[in-house]
Amino acid sequence: MPDLRKDPIVGRWVIIATDRAKRPHDYQRPPAPQAVSGFCPFCPGNESHTPPEILAFREPGTAANQTGWRVRVIPNKFPALQIEGDLEKRGDGIFDLMNGVGAHEVIIESPAHESSMARLPVDAIREVLWMYRDRLSDLQRDKRFVHGLAFKNSGPAAGASLEHCHSQLIVVPIVPITIAEELRGSLEFYKYRDRCIFCDMLRQEVDQRERVVLETEEFVAFCPFASRFPYETWIVPKRHSSHFETTSRESLAAMAGVLQGVLRKLERALDNPPYNYMLHTAPFGSADLPHYHWHLEIIPRVTGIAGFEWGSGFYINSVLPEQAGAILRDTVVELGAGLPTRGSDC
Amino acid sequence: MPDLRKDPIVGRWVIIATDRAKRPHDYQRPPAPQAVSGFCPFCPGNESHTPPEILAFREPGTAANQTGWRVRVIPNKFPALQIEGDLEKRGDGIFDLMNGVGAHEVIIESPAHESSMARLPVDAIREVLWMYRDRLSDLQRDKRFVHGLAFKNSGPAAGASLEHCHSQLIVVPIVPITIAEELRGSLEFYKYRDRCIFCDMLRQEVDQRERVVLETEEFVAFCPFASRFPYETWIVPKRHSSHFETTSRESLAAMAGVLQGVLRKLERALDNPPYNYMLHTAPFGSADLPHYHWHLEIIPRVTGIAGFEWGSGFYINSVLPEQAGAILRDTVVELGAGLPTRGSDC
Repeated sequence: MPDLRKDPIVGRWVIIATDRAKRPHDYQRPPAPQAVSGFCPFCPGNESHTPPEILAFREPGTAANQTGWRVRVIPNKFPALQIEGDLEKRGDGIFDLMNGVGAHEVIIESPAHESSMARLPVDAIREVLWMYRDRLSDLQRDKRFVHGLAFKNSGPAAGASLEHCHSQLIVVPIVPITIAEELRGSLEFYKYRDRCIFCDMLRQEVDQRERVVLETEEFVAFCPFASRFPYETWIVPKRHSSHFETTSRESLAAMAGVLQGVLRKLERALDNPPYNYMLHTAPFGSADLPHYHWHLEIIPRVTGIAGFEWGSGFYINSVLPEQAGAILRDTVVELGAGLPTRGSDC
Repeated sequence: MPDLRKDPIVGRWVIIATDRAKRPHDYQRPPAPQAVSGFCPFCPGNESHTPPEILAFREPGTAANQTGWRVRVIPNKFPALQIEGDLEKRGDGIFDLMNGVGAHEVIIESPAHESSMARLPVDAIREVLWMYRDRLSDLQRDKRFVHGLAFKNSGPAAGASLEHCHSQLIVVPIVPITIAEELRGSLEFYKYRDRCIFCDMLRQEVDQRERVVLETEEFVAFCPFASRFPYETWIVPKRHSSHFETTSRESLAAMAGVLQGVLRKLERALDNPPYNYMLHTAPFGSADLPHYHWHLEIIPRVTGIAGFEWGSGFYINSVLPEQAGAILRDTVVELGAGLPTRGSDC
């Protein structure tokens, strides 16, 4: 079983997953983009080549692990964490560790062998968001777990190892440090001003407009004031809410349109960049938090990070967020239906 | 002039350096490894192709910006921050920003066109460490600046854009969030236990030995308990000290031997991996801090990071730090003299 180990200085946790271990010389270079093979385990008809499904949205009358699904969730075949076992926290002198209990699931976003979520019809994206909601709602009933992160790696340079478009969900037994820092910072602001800092930020973005990429009745997409990366874009609900999984299905349908729009704008403006997105939501089990606000962060992976960023936590961004906002805002894209597929045959 | 912008939620600062801006389509992919051209601006005889030097260790009787140097410091030709100007802090509604005042210097580590610091003789590495000390000592006299980070990007995949071995120094007007978190965490520990957490960690590493890569009278190199990356290695002085720039020249000579040893072990065990190292030291101007301890972090760039790491701050490491420690400890390398050069002719 993997170990979870805590850095004693800053409190950052690390998953030591040695089932994935390699010999030293296997690490000569960052993994090369994986060649597209003829066989895709995520395509319909190949369900038996994946672990049995956890949940799928299916056509009426179709059976589990058969064709007929629209969105399908399976356990990750090479999980970073293991779902079975009790949580055992222990010490080793000055150090803290626990066994690596958690969930690591893969959400296959479409039966079509399409590499880009941006090209899916809005209804398919809506069902992916619904699936995040359903899986987070289910997994939080497990009292061992305290937080779930849904995320996407799109393109080999962003960490995707299979082309067929998919996202992942990792549920962990401790609050991740990134979320803990957002909670701490937003609580400090709330104590001082009695307002949600995300709500304040949204008001200013909507007023100033210069960094806004897309705005609808319920959502705003914008390039944040202190964007770490060129064309970084956040999607934030206008109505205050700390827990993504409490969002109504109607609101998620609205969000799907915004997500599709932003991804299509990024794809067109940056010529199909590799990117990651991460769904930041409050830890499980708490009531709605007045200071925290769930949101989706999208980071195109068009520049690398190096020693300065690793050593300081500073980022160097060479594109003004106002310029990125204007370019994305002015990029015209079709919305709604699916686009001609770009996946390879399989 | 660049802007420094603060993320209002977590307090992370970003440098918006638009002088480096590109059009959207220039960002199609992370920069490809730069081809080695025939001309190297860092080689002796080409001094006029760099900005005028700030400091150099030279042979007696040689003049600035001529040949005869052993280690040479120049301003970065494409600086992330600008050295001139007063620091002007201002607000924009909810947001905080200041103008991007700071220093961004390049340390050319050897007159030989060698791509790898590991292959330099130990005396050359000693002079590089002395140069970090000298530049940090000089720059902290400037009251606008509060912290300096010396770091190295080795290999194109780790962010190096020129082959000739060099490191960089970035001095900033605010304490970087990574250092601030180390200061906060180590102060908490100190308040509770009245001891330096780094000193405690060193004692445990030396006792357990399983993660130790190299140990000398004054320094320990080890793979940290919660290593984020395979073969991550830290070099830490045994004697408590918060400020690198107060280290004696004799101690830096001892450190040079350890750094050379660790880099040669990494180069041999991992077949010349790209890597970054970052020198973590206390902010300028404070007296020695009882809770903080300067150290050098070396991270081989042999695996990528993706959505999970960006969204959670968790890292997934597939090599046990005890295994990495044993492999590096058992890797035999020559020490002291320089190795046959591997740089290309120019």
